[in-house]
Amino acid sequence: MEVPALNKKGYVKALKCRECGKEYPPVKIHACEECFSPLEVVYAIDSININKRIIEGRRKTLWRYRELLPLEDETKIIDLGAGFTPLHECKRLAETLGLKRVYIKNDTVNPTGSFKDRPAAVAVSKSLEFGFKSVGCASTGNLAAATAAHAAKAELPCYVFVPSSIEKSKILQAAAYGAKIIAVSGTYDDANRLAAQVSYECDLAIVNINLRPYYVEGSRTIIFEVCEQLGWRAPENIIIPVGSGALLCAVWRGLKQFNDIGFIDELKTKIVGAQPKGCSPVIEAYKSNLEDILPVEKPETIAKSLAIGDPGDGIYALRSIRESGGLAESVTERK
Amino acid sequence: MEVPALNKKGYVKALKCRECGKEYPPVKIHACEECFSPLEVVYAIDSININKRIIEGRRKTLWRYRELLPLEDETKIIDLGAGFTPLHECKRLAETLGLKRVYIKNDTVNPTGSFKDRPAAVAVSKSLEFGFKSVGCASTGNLAAATAAHAAKAELPCYVFVPSSIEKSKILQAAAYGAKIIAVSGTYDDANRLAAQVSYECDLAIVNINLRPYYVEGSRTIIFEVCEQLGWRAPENIIIPVGSGALLCAVWRGLKQFNDIGFIDELKTKIVGAQPKGCSPVIEAYKSNLEDILPVEKPETIAKSLAIGDPGDGIYALRSIRESGGLAESVTERK
Repeated sequence: MEVPALNKKGYVKALKCRECGKEYPPVKIHACEECFSPLEVVYAIDSININKRIIEGRRKTLWRYRELLPLEDETKIIDLGAGFTPLHECKRLAETLGLKRVYIKNDTVNPTGSFKDRPAAVAVSKSLEFGFKSVGCASTGNLAAATAAHAAKAELPCYVFVPSSIEKSKILQAAAYGAKIIAVSGTYDDANRLAAQVSYECDLAIVNINLRPYYVEGSRTIIFEVCEQLGWRAPENIIIPVGSGALLCAVWRGLKQFNDIGFIDELKTKIVGAQPKGCSPVIEAYKSNLEDILPVEKPETIAKSLAIGDPGDGIYALRSIRESGGLAESVTERK
Repeated sequence: MEVPALNKKGYVKALKCRECGKEYPPVKIHACEECFSPLEVVYAIDSININKRIIEGRRKTLWRYRELLPLEDETKIIDLGAGFTPLHECKRLAETLGLKRVYIKNDTVNPTGSFKDRPAAVAVSKSLEFGFKSVGCASTGNLAAATAAHAAKAELPCYVFVPSSIEKSKILQAAAYGAKIIAVSGTYDDANRLAAQVSYECDLAIVNINLRPYYVEGSRTIIFEVCEQLGWRAPENIIIPVGSGALLCAVWRGLKQFNDIGFIDELKTKIVGAQPKGCSPVIEAYKSNLEDILPVEKPETIAKSLAIGDPGDGIYALRSIRESGGLAESVTERK
């Protein structure tokens, strides 16, 4: 599928350290050289010359917001049609819950079945732009499929690192797209560490590790869409499941950027984090008024994608929740 | 989600018997009273006053073609966002197969995961319009989920009749949407017969039985979309998996109607039917130059949705293939 041309070579100004604020040019780097903290993409928001009408006229994929994505070379865009998923108004659910309006953003209808198609699309495209010869990911399942599908389209070999306890069906999907599967005895955190080690030694773009600053940018498109679908208004509250915490942070950043650029009029959204009771380190920290996350050693939940005991973006998720004036809650599971 | 108003009260002229040609007003009737053959919706094509530009400006669901769907009361439309799924150009597959261009229509990103959301959306909407108090279906799985989801949105009780050998995950999905599951010891054909008997005795719209003439209309939207996505041109060849044969017939009818209405310039598409080797009654009839279908008593295939030994629309699928100058082929499975 063709993607219309970028107005110019992208709007990425720098990568900036989330902790010490040091800035770097937007190159192959994923942690601050001073303090080892995560880096974030900074856009030249003031130079972005698009308006709502232009966006509305574009194809209904996440690439409609491409000026707010960290790609410079449009020919490297890998587009499987991810994004612009339906926002369903759930009238009966609202009634049951005693609320005025409730919407569900159905990201299961993305090409490989989850919201991970968003960051994977951006990261695999960026890997191509950087000239990496192979891509991969550490995954609890959904990201494996998303990365593998986009890698197949990009004609790049793909290596996915997964905990060996993963649901077979999720891995079958990645394998069907041609990925090589590396099953790690241990948790997701173990698979993640091994993938990081491999990425240091090989010419391998692990999308959620050494491409992470670019990767997370893709997830912001979910809130861009929600605002556009609500008639260019932000929701009052938004409830977000928390695994690594990256999605929650991306949503909050995306909202702030949409406000900065003038696509929404005011920023009053409260961010609510949700985790399963058996793996809720972020919620525990929130409730105990802590600044740090106490890792959960043995995550216990049927929601495998949320079974991340030591969430990489946990403290940033916590800060986002607090900054927005939101809250955090854990959820029991029926046995 | 709102659906913009119909220009007037729909364009359905009549129901017409596929065999003897007898016409009926478009009421609650699903077989010819003279010869018991299936009925087809006839539209007042000449009075339909829309053009390509109007359609292009509409929401990207199957309801963008609503003048070509058999609804009269727009307030009864149940819209979960089915349709307008991506048409992927598969360059590498084309290369491998030695073809110039190959596209895959990815209907797995419909709301419940299959193309059955199309006929289910139309049939459940029509059930509401007719004032039925409950809906249901006979299903090998996908239709169960599609009917149940649309019934939930319509706030109608839903009863699904399935062979007891069905994949659990498919039934779980329908159950999660609140459907009552009736598991029938036997094949799909047995479940189908039982559902038909129940529909005769209760105020129950079995979407693929007593709502069938309306139900099948929804499936035509897949080819409407393909033509629109190809720039209002029909594909040269189209390969369609054959279960009951209804989808194949719907595609061929849809193409002819798009040609009649002037949305495509010429009709040269060849329709190719595909069935698994272990259940290929239509393909066998095609290859043996027969007019009738010899039912397969014990379908053997991992493609459960194609395990229909006595396909209801088999002979019409056969005729459509021949009328288009296409062909039919069966496919082996890796053991």
